[in-house]
Amino acid sequence: MPTSRPPHDLPGRVSRVVVTPVAFRDPPLLNVVGVHQPYVLRAVVQVHADEGLVGLGETYADQAHLDRLEAVAAALPGADVFDLNGLRRVVVEALGASTGGAGASFGGMLEVSSAVDTVAAPFEVALLDLQGKALGRPVSDLLGGAVRERVPYSAYLFYKWAGHPGHGEDDWGEGRTPEQLVAQARRMVTEYGFTAVKLKGGVHEPRHEIETVEALAAEFPGHALRIDPNGAWTVGTSIEVAGRLADVLEYLEDPTPGIEGMALVAERTELPLATNMCVIAFEHLRPAVAADAVQVVLSDHHLWGGLRRSALLGGICETFGLGLSMHSNSHLGISLAAMTHLAAATPNLTYACDTHDPWKTEDVVRPGVLEFRDGSVAVPTGPGLGIELDEDALAALHEQYVTCGQRGREDTAYMRSIVPGFTPNTARW
Amino acid sequence: MPTSRPPHDLPGRVSRVVVTPVAFRDPPLLNVVGVHQPYVLRAVVQVHADEGLVGLGETYADQAHLDRLEAVAAALPGADVFDLNGLRRVVVEALGASTGGAGASFGGMLEVSSAVDTVAAPFEVALLDLQGKALGRPVSDLLGGAVRERVPYSAYLFYKWAGHPGHGEDDWGEGRTPEQLVAQARRMVTEYGFTAVKLKGGVHEPRHEIETVEALAAEFPGHALRIDPNGAWTVGTSIEVAGRLADVLEYLEDPTPGIEGMALVAERTELPLATNMCVIAFEHLRPAVAADAVQVVLSDHHLWGGLRRSALLGGICETFGLGLSMHSNSHLGISLAAMTHLAAATPNLTYACDTHDPWKTEDVVRPGVLEFRDGSVAVPTGPGLGIELDEDALAALHEQYVTCGQRGREDTAYMRSIVPGFTPNTARW
Ligand SMILES: [Mg+2]
Ligand SMILES: [Mg+2]
Repeated sequence: MPTSRPPHDLPGRVSRVVVTPVAFRDPPLLNVVGVHQPYVLRAVVQVHADEGLVGLGETYADQAHLDRLEAVAAALPGADVFDLNGLRRVVVEALGASTGGAGASFGGMLEVSSAVDTVAAPFEVALLDLQGKALGRPVSDLLGGAVRERVPYSAYLFYKWAGHPGHGEDDWGEGRTPEQLVAQARRMVTEYGFTAVKLKGGVHEPRHEIETVEALAAEFPGHALRIDPNGAWTVGTSIEVAGRLADVLEYLEDPTPGIEGMALVAERTELPLATNMCVIAFEHLRPAVAADAVQVVLSDHHLWGGLRRSALLGGICETFGLGLSMHSNSHLGISLAAMTHLAAATPNLTYACDTHDPWKTEDVVRPGVLEFRDGSVAVPTGPGLGIELDEDALAALHEQYVTCGQRGREDTAYMRSIVPGFTPNTARW
Repeated sequence: MPTSRPPHDLPGRVSRVVVTPVAFRDPPLLNVVGVHQPYVLRAVVQVHADEGLVGLGETYADQAHLDRLEAVAAALPGADVFDLNGLRRVVVEALGASTGGAGASFGGMLEVSSAVDTVAAPFEVALLDLQGKALGRPVSDLLGGAVRERVPYSAYLFYKWAGHPGHGEDDWGEGRTPEQLVAQARRMVTEYGFTAVKLKGGVHEPRHEIETVEALAAEFPGHALRIDPNGAWTVGTSIEVAGRLADVLEYLEDPTPGIEGMALVAERTELPLATNMCVIAFEHLRPAVAADAVQVVLSDHHLWGGLRRSALLGGICETFGLGLSMHSNSHLGISLAAMTHLAAATPNLTYACDTHDPWKTEDVVRPGVLEFRDGSVAVPTGPGLGIELDEDALAALHEQYVTCGQRGREDTAYMRSIVPGFTPNTARW
């Protein structure tokens, strides 16, 4: 009886890497620092290996981040597709001295001391996609196996303008009043089946946003509700709102900026506080745990170094008694697939994940997988991420990137171009 | 160009599982709770999958633990070899209500509230071995890739009797005086090339053990030295010894029992405190970090739920600023292979790992891999763990188990059979 058999001719080495910036249309969604620009920028990473296999990854596409991705892309050929530790060494070397900042698309809201995790993430996802394709196994298997067949997502509501100035009204129309937000939620719940609903706040004064949440609670009893003002409130206001909405929310996300501020709020409410702002890298976990500042961490594989590192975050949350949810920026189907595999293989990811998917009208992934039903996405069962790149769509969205003129995410600058003198609402109320 | 190819016919399912208890000879090594019995008990786990592939694991073999292993072995057939999360569910179900205690071989020294990790560990290792054998990849690749080609181990010195009573003098002879321990170290360093040396203490009064460490430091300048009295000392004595040996040791292991006690010692010394006693499960990390009780955690995949969970422990240590080393109980080659793959793929495992290997005269693994050179073991490059089971040796050591009469690890009882009235030295001095 053989105790092992000859190695398969698995694809062993990276042959070349292509990074393609793309732009896709986005409505004027409002947030604490301004408003979404007409296009979202993303970078699609294709890692080619022996035998014509290609692994896919997706990440931010601000120019500074793109430069870093290109440096890694140039250095990666020859790497072993199983050597994820080696990928990190390649990234560290490619970044050299310029490792500061996450290079990510948050309009300067967030601070991370090293870009290694953020830059490594799309390549790690692509290598896992390659491994899975070679093995005939979904990525969730490489993460320890799916513990659920479907991954629940939440509706993601935004206050918004009726349309981008000069472009007429968009398909969603104005989102300003509680009634308009309830209508927005109703459409998403009807089309997607969501049973969790998140409101992006930090746009209007707290009284108005509280009224919106209360209108949602009245309209969707039994739905899990969240509000995320991205640190728009003072500690005092946060405590007050937490008291007012304690019976309505499943968690309160980033009411006020910083670990210290969150800790002060946490001391005064039973409502779990969630964050994707004061804990966005491994370096933030130790001080956050020490201060008992947050009760739920929103993971995000784009920021946290990929799927294996996000699984580590999951394990840390379990070990230190923290809840685990998942953050989303505007994304395409490659990221949705990666998020779904990760969530499926993370036992303690018990909250519905965030997604901007309903706001998206263009994609680079062929339809057929990643459909929403009952508010959830079935974990793809095909090899790797289980999705197929649409090369024509990729070319079209790249062309859109070339011509759109945007080269970074600039919510505040775009807002100021329309509302002169606008300043971010951080800790404003 | 294909973006994926048809699934390989990888072994998909567990067909049957065989758990074989074995016994191998062990010298009378002294410790805080007594003395090693004439035989070490271990269990060899063989997980059979489609196509005749077999994955190997190794763990403790106390009767209570064996019963639990057998329950899992009976439930595992049909499981997907990639579904490590599913393995944990099988273990939880097999344990049912009787999950208390680690079921491990520590003579009652250690307390863990759940046996899930300890029971799951050998099966997890066997599944990873199977995955690697099927893929033609070493287990280190499945853990993210080896960051080092060789894994350094430390010499593990013991005070000992000249031989088991009634069996004459063994090959190592008496180990009581500093001179005898220096001679023991010299032999290990010469034969294995170790550059780190650990002394198991807690046997003699501290003054005697300090003299031994000082004799080792004089004889082996530049070697990394450690002493581990397994909690034999009071807080006051620990602080005193730490002061005396501060310039000589790389870390001081478990001088006193418990997180609280360790924290009191840590407050009063610059010497890093290491542990494999007060932090031996995920549940202990939070209180230990909060109390700043230890600076180095000794991982042990047998206790911590296997290789992936031990990698999680490694990530937690990195995140929370803790050093990482590796603990050893008496073990066979299957565990040495697993330890070596894990250590190779754990970037922040920067200390030489413990091993009882030099005390071992019998094994179930064919020689050829796992040789020591310059104090280190080359990471096996063959598929899976990269080792081969010697079926004849397994049968012989199982026969030895059947006839030896031992059914658990009983250091204290064995000591009392020779030294009536002996009580463990825990916090004695
Ligand atoms: Mg947020
Ligand atoms: Mg120890």
